[in-house]
Amino acid sequence: MKLWGGRFRKPTAPELETLSRSIEFDRRLWREDVLINRAYARELAEVGILSALELEQILTGLEVVEAKLRENPPLADEDIHTAVERVLAEVIEDPEVVSKLPTGRSRNDLAATGFRMYLANEIGGVLENVRKIQTVLLEKAKTSANVLLPGYTHMRRGQPVVFAQYLLAWFWALERDRARLRGARERALELPLGAGALAGNPFGVDRNRLARELGFPVVFPNSIDAVSSRDFALEFLSSAAILGVNLSRMAEDLILWSGAEYSFVSFDESYATGSSLMPQKQNPDGLELVRGKTGRLLGDLVSLLTTVKGLATGYQRDLQEDKEPVFDALDTLNLTLPVMEGVIGSLVVREEQMAKALSFDLLATDLAEYLVRKGVSFRRAHDAVGQVLARAEERGVAPFELSLEDLRALSPEFGSDVSSAFDFRASVERRDSEGGVSARAIEVQVRKAERALTF
Amino acid sequence: MKLWGGRFRKPTAPELETLSRSIEFDRRLWREDVLINRAYARELAEVGILSALELEQILTGLEVVEAKLRENPPLADEDIHTAVERVLAEVIEDPEVVSKLPTGRSRNDLAATGFRMYLANEIGGVLENVRKIQTVLLEKAKTSANVLLPGYTHMRRGQPVVFAQYLLAWFWALERDRARLRGARERALELPLGAGALAGNPFGVDRNRLARELGFPVVFPNSIDAVSSRDFALEFLSSAAILGVNLSRMAEDLILWSGAEYSFVSFDESYATGSSLMPQKQNPDGLELVRGKTGRLLGDLVSLLTTVKGLATGYQRDLQEDKEPVFDALDTLNLTLPVMEGVIGSLVVREEQMAKALSFDLLATDLAEYLVRKGVSFRRAHDAVGQVLARAEERGVAPFELSLEDLRALSPEFGSDVSSAFDFRASVERRDSEGGVSARAIEVQVRKAERALTF
Amino acid sequence: MKLWGGRFRKPTAPELETLSRSIEFDRRLWREDVLINRAYARELAEVGILSALELEQILTGLEVVEAKLRENPPLADEDIHTAVERVLAEVIEDPEVVSKLPTGRSRNDLAATGFRMYLANEIGGVLENVRKIQTVLLEKAKTSANVLLPGYTHMRRGQPVVFAQYLLAWFWALERDRARLRGARERALELPLGAGALAGNPFGVDRNRLARELGFPVVFPNSIDAVSSRDFALEFLSSAAILGVNLSRMAEDLILWSGAEYSFVSFDESYATGSSLMPQKQNPDGLELVRGKTGRLLGDLVSLLTTVKGLATGYQRDLQEDKEPVFDALDTLNLTLPVMEGVIGSLVVREEQMAKALSFDLLATDLAEYLVRKGVSFRRAHDAVGQVLARAEERGVAPFELSLEDLRALSPEFGSDVSSAFDFRASVERRDSEGGVSARAIEVQVRKAERALTF
Amino acid sequence: MKLWGGRFRKPTAPELETLSRSIEFDRRLWREDVLINRAYARELAEVGILSALELEQILTGLEVVEAKLRENPPLADEDIHTAVERVLAEVIEDPEVVSKLPTGRSRNDLAATGFRMYLANEIGGVLENVRKIQTVLLEKAKTSANVLLPGYTHMRRGQPVVFAQYLLAWFWALERDRARLRGARERALELPLGAGALAGNPFGVDRNRLARELGFPVVFPNSIDAVSSRDFALEFLSSAAILGVNLSRMAEDLILWSGAEYSFVSFDESYATGSSLMPQKQNPDGLELVRGKTGRLLGDLVSLLTTVKGLATGYQRDLQEDKEPVFDALDTLNLTLPVMEGVIGSLVVREEQMAKALSFDLLATDLAEYLVRKGVSFRRAHDAVGQVLARAEERGVAPFELSLEDLRALSPEFGSDVSSAFDFRASVERRDSEGGVSARAIEVQVRKAERALTF
Repeated sequence: MKLWGGRFRKPTAPELETLSRSIEFDRRLWREDVLINRAYARELAEVGILSALELEQILTGLEVVEAKLRENPPLADEDIHTAVERVLAEVIEDPEVVSKLPTGRSRNDLAATGFRMYLANEIGGVLENVRKIQTVLLEKAKTSANVLLPGYTHMRRGQPVVFAQYLLAWFWALERDRARLRGARERALELPLGAGALAGNPFGVDRNRLARELGFPVVFPNSIDAVSSRDFALEFLSSAAILGVNLSRMAEDLILWSGAEYSFVSFDESYATGSSLMPQKQNPDGLELVRGKTGRLLGDLVSLLTTVKGLATGYQRDLQEDKEPVFDALDTLNLTLPVMEGVIGSLVVREEQMAKALSFDLLATDLAEYLVRKGVSFRRAHDAVGQVLARAEERGVAPFELSLEDLRALSPEFGSDVSSAFDFRASVERRDSEGGVSARAIEVQVRKAERALTF
Repeated sequence: MKLWGGRFRKPTAPELETLSRSIEFDRRLWREDVLINRAYARELAEVGILSALELEQILTGLEVVEAKLRENPPLADEDIHTAVERVLAEVIEDPEVVSKLPTGRSRNDLAATGFRMYLANEIGGVLENVRKIQTVLLEKAKTSANVLLPGYTHMRRGQPVVFAQYLLAWFWALERDRARLRGARERALELPLGAGALAGNPFGVDRNRLARELGFPVVFPNSIDAVSSRDFALEFLSSAAILGVNLSRMAEDLILWSGAEYSFVSFDESYATGSSLMPQKQNPDGLELVRGKTGRLLGDLVSLLTTVKGLATGYQRDLQEDKEPVFDALDTLNLTLPVMEGVIGSLVVREEQMAKALSFDLLATDLAEYLVRKGVSFRRAHDAVGQVLARAEERGVAPFELSLEDLRALSPEFGSDVSSAFDFRASVERRDSEGGVSARAIEVQVRKAERALTF
Repeated sequence: MKLWGGRFRKPTAPELETLSRSIEFDRRLWREDVLINRAYARELAEVGILSALELEQILTGLEVVEAKLRENPPLADEDIHTAVERVLAEVIEDPEVVSKLPTGRSRNDLAATGFRMYLANEIGGVLENVRKIQTVLLEKAKTSANVLLPGYTHMRRGQPVVFAQYLLAWFWALERDRARLRGARERALELPLGAGALAGNPFGVDRNRLARELGFPVVFPNSIDAVSSRDFALEFLSSAAILGVNLSRMAEDLILWSGAEYSFVSFDESYATGSSLMPQKQNPDGLELVRGKTGRLLGDLVSLLTTVKGLATGYQRDLQEDKEPVFDALDTLNLTLPVMEGVIGSLVVREEQMAKALSFDLLATDLAEYLVRKGVSFRRAHDAVGQVLARAEERGVAPFELSLEDLRALSPEFGSDVSSAFDFRASVERRDSEGGVSARAIEVQVRKAERALTF
Repeated sequence: MKLWGGRFRKPTAPELETLSRSIEFDRRLWREDVLINRAYARELAEVGILSALELEQILTGLEVVEAKLRENPPLADEDIHTAVERVLAEVIEDPEVVSKLPTGRSRNDLAATGFRMYLANEIGGVLENVRKIQTVLLEKAKTSANVLLPGYTHMRRGQPVVFAQYLLAWFWALERDRARLRGARERALELPLGAGALAGNPFGVDRNRLARELGFPVVFPNSIDAVSSRDFALEFLSSAAILGVNLSRMAEDLILWSGAEYSFVSFDESYATGSSLMPQKQNPDGLELVRGKTGRLLGDLVSLLTTVKGLATGYQRDLQEDKEPVFDALDTLNLTLPVMEGVIGSLVVREEQMAKALSFDLLATDLAEYLVRKGVSFRRAHDAVGQVLARAEERGVAPFELSLEDLRALSPEFGSDVSSAFDFRASVERRDSEGGVSARAIEVQVRKAERALTF
């Protein structure tokens, strides 16, 4: 069965048939196709194309179709629309009835509508998966608000922070990802149905009624744009790629921190796998795959950007290439997000190992700030501390082991209270501005995060 | 002058010096750097690091710096922050005063703040440029609401539409681009300042006051996230790439339509260039460059996605690579958008050429719909018309030249009123559902577009 | 069955199990896995790990495995290596024998070896498919060496050329694609086997003997590089993307040329499809899909580049992501290349339509060259012809309809032989330097192409 | 001065003028433009377009032009070709002479020729820079052939290796990069000159003679392909991106290894920079920039792939976008390669720190192999060792501290010689197959590498 054969005298070349078939991937959209057919049939009845009886036949028939497809997702037809129409024709006795269903409609508006419904719904699922990670992050943050560890820049220990600050850094990145995904969903939810192939619907269907029935807040205001644009899919793929980038960074952190060199955290063995050769190995495969699969999210985005970029306005068959990258991105996220949730949920914070990594040079900034509080300008204080460190290095001692005289030789403002600068906890508590790492600042932040999660 | 030399005994290797220098591109941010310094100085005075006199010296000094940099944008320093501090030090007598300015601050939070301010402001300019194109599109649409031409799918003539429908299709695509850009701007406008290098500010600066002064609606809730995240830049680059894709499609349409084969439109000679070899040539270089430069927008996006993807959390020097792709994308849009506006503004619609392209096979769908209105099911009508076309082709005549008998032999429902189907204007008028091409539907759409432009 | 479970006390988390499984795609490599096992078993026998009897059991067992897998490609195991080992264990009675097979070997070197063998072989298939297109191009070129049409730059008619020149332009682009693919194949054919997980083989296997047996010209000289590098896959994906770009350009040409506006060529109906709505449509879907699927070739490349870019040296699980983009690129090429071959093979050259598009302004360059031959400098000649065209346009006549007086007023060198410049065939024949469009130059080129095809 | 204005009545729109100008980047090609003009002038004299005297004027003039441009690279013209012609016209008295120079030539073939010459030459420079890194790698490898450290997979310690093996792994990756770059250079070196705008040269110039003079081994066999194809640039950009990926991996290794957590190596302070806030910091900025700038290499590739993908055959102005990504990739490599060379050249191998990281679980594989040598099958040995490790962990002892009885309880094949398995040096020496880490295998590899460097 073909939906377009009328004028053709020759069969399709087998190599084109193979190239052209989309059922392997668009059969995911079977449920949407059924729902759209149902709504469209009602609308055709409203405008008098279908009689009440015909409508009933179709609605009943579609229920059978739905049951059949749920059991046996189609694989042999050209595409999902052909499949649904074929099965419906097997179910309804009078071929004329089924044959009326596509009146005024084209695969162009039909496919775009189903794809948008599906994507909007799936984005909902992704949002929920992201939210779950945020929830575990927030829980872990609450119990690690006082756990000291080095904060890193340039992969080098910089200043003492608390572990909660890392977990919450990830939290906020994911929060922005959710905002982007919601934007993508909003753009997806414009109804193309009623645009026909390109010129609009000539039978007076009420597109706003269709939109309400199918869960679209608005209709596309322009029939050509409705069938030709794919920017909603590009926007989703962008959001997915950026989310992937954020997940990859989290995974990289966790892979390093759970290795022998850092030993800051461990996570449940069930998220590791072993080696076929080396019996001792416990490899962080879950995290590595989260990290590695970000590549395909970028690839999916570039794939569709490139394809759409090369086109003039109007539906072109190239646009059939919209679905696979989107489905791949959805699958990738739905595979990786739960693993990330599981790993973080099972995270054991190794407080004593973190503490071991707190060397006194991490307080160099505090030492400079000590001088600032004594009235020294910051640049001069920075320089003086640089010399303190150099001097300590020469002597082979820790900076706090230098005598007060030694210190004063480098900056006369050093006083006997200098030891107050050599305190990791105090260092953290001093960073008390909003967003900082003091206990109070973290508490404020946790409350903000709780509020964010209510959306 | 270096902001970080204190502890180093050796000079930087010259090849690293060259690789590392960012002044060639970050000097764009000189104005933002001055503004931030001003606001931060005020805040330092509030918390007692600067005396009232010192503050005044700095504020006065920054005015001189501003004037100097406006005249001579710096080029020899390591980066813009070093440049501003150096020039300020040349202006203010007491080195201790300037030396207090960076108290509690790092280049990490400073650079991120300036970059975000700049980007948010520039997005405003891009939005305005997009809006200008929309304005000319809408004007042209109003005057071409009755101009018939073939609507295309698969680069093949499909059905008659009106030219306004194409112009408005572009309008709505740009409208979504504006929504995406606004989302990107919103995400840019979170204040990092006060995050320090990573751990927050220890001198009690009020980040919300800083935010208000610098035009940021909110502050970053987390100091590590504030200096480490670049998703705002990725989101802008995504929005720019998608906008570029939409512009490329418009350009492709216009290049084809203005060529000898279509001849649908022409545009002002001042947007074309000639050939050094072929004297007769008028080439659409402006449009070709709009189309071609979309490649670099994709490249800019991939560039930064890749760089950020490879990182752990925390500031890394790789992130210095955030600026050039963003600047390049901004420049590219600011170069191409005005050309697109100019081309469309000068567009001459060649109505008679469009009419010539309206062949009667474009009414095949109308013929099928004629049968539908006679009670024939759509699929059967589609088939019958397929045979009508085949028959006409065999006879070497146009479909409407077939006799009624001939038509009835293929579908008995054909009546003497069949000629009503062979009317391009009527075809267009029948597509009267929302978003369609009837005069009424276009008018509704134009009003919607006018409303959209008020935002 | 797991190849690495020994030390683990907990089962793998189900979400990691799902994320981690590669059998859905790496089962393609079953044949290579069997071949490698066979060769490796022989080598283990050589070094005394397997007895002659054990070797025989394994070799016989592998034959059964091969037959079984050919019938039922595995789907339930973790990966193809696990599957092969599991089936072998079902076939051979003594579990100790199968259990010896992986001695000194890791999935790291095993997987890389199978993947490289598969890719090298598949590149051979792609090369053959490209060669087939070149063959039909060359055939068509021979029969269209005298067919005149406008040659285009900037999508604008430039100068007369012969159709063969376009076909041969594509030919040579594909010839370079073949060279790149051969380079990628050469880089694929380095043997990793014997590298173990990373440190090499401790049982004295002779890797050069293994290489010979498995068809690898060389062995990897470094065990870490052998398991860690994927640049061979990146090189293939680059070559595939560039080939895709070339195919997309050919497809774009053919889509335009076969449309109503150009009408230069037509191709067999069996490579077109119809519309579900518009009965008259014959859409170039095959070509559109060739063009559109280039996007995924770029996506595949970016996907793997990004993934590998983010890694340190050494095998990481992220590298499991190497296979899907490569398989997708191979499949895409194997789907699109035959369609391109079919379309070109069925191409009908519409000589009279091409001739219609030859307007006299295409000879403006010849007119300038006429003046050059009279001793006028080229720039002055170019200018003079510009004025001739402008004058003709003002008068509303064709340039060759201007009187000799009119011409002489613009450039006194015009003589009565000027009509010689207004001859399309002569124009083409004058371009007789190597690579030009004269009959002789085309003949030379065809002979070069024939020679190229013998490789 | 414009090379194409003759027919135009209106000046170019200022926004197009700005968009269109390429002199900012193509002025790099000034030397090539001069060389091509010189060779082409000689050829025009050969075919009688220029007299001997005119040729002499032009050749002398070009010498002046060369000197002028070397001093003052042009910036105000439309492009470099216009600039060269303008300056030449300022130098030579008779305008007719200069005006003859472009006879039969177009900017299309001229620009492509200059770009290819430049790129081929620059690839030579990149090859040399890569070779220098290989040279220092090889030197360092020779002195670290006996330095033990853990070899990593999955960022987890796997088995003992020698440090030379890592250095040589990088060496071979770079060796393949050189092969790819040579392929790209070969494809660049086809001469387009003589193709004109698209149709070839009508004045009988000998393109093979031009090729010889300009250093091209071959001429393009097809005039349309010559001006339209950019796959040579795509191939270079692919090779550059893959090289970048390899450099990024090396940089990532070195960043981690030189951090406090690993402490395996250090490099000269002159390749680090400090922090404006934290006085103690020494950040590996050079390596971070090498790693981060790989993003732009990917971006450059995607940029041009996308642009070319969207085009039909024939020169289009979009192709002007070929130069910037290529120049950016060249600059990026020329900036990063010397830094990488410098870092590696200054590398200090911290042998004792590496030794500290060698824990006994790294010998688990050796323990399993010990059992294999006692006749145990590998899978069973792997399992047994898994249990040994678990038992040791329960007891809180190192595996080699378990008693022989304990071991025998898990696998009766353990004998009193089991201590031989607990020797890192012996472990390494056992991996003696080609490509392994034994002293002998490394020596073989070093000799291979020396041979490779002679190319």
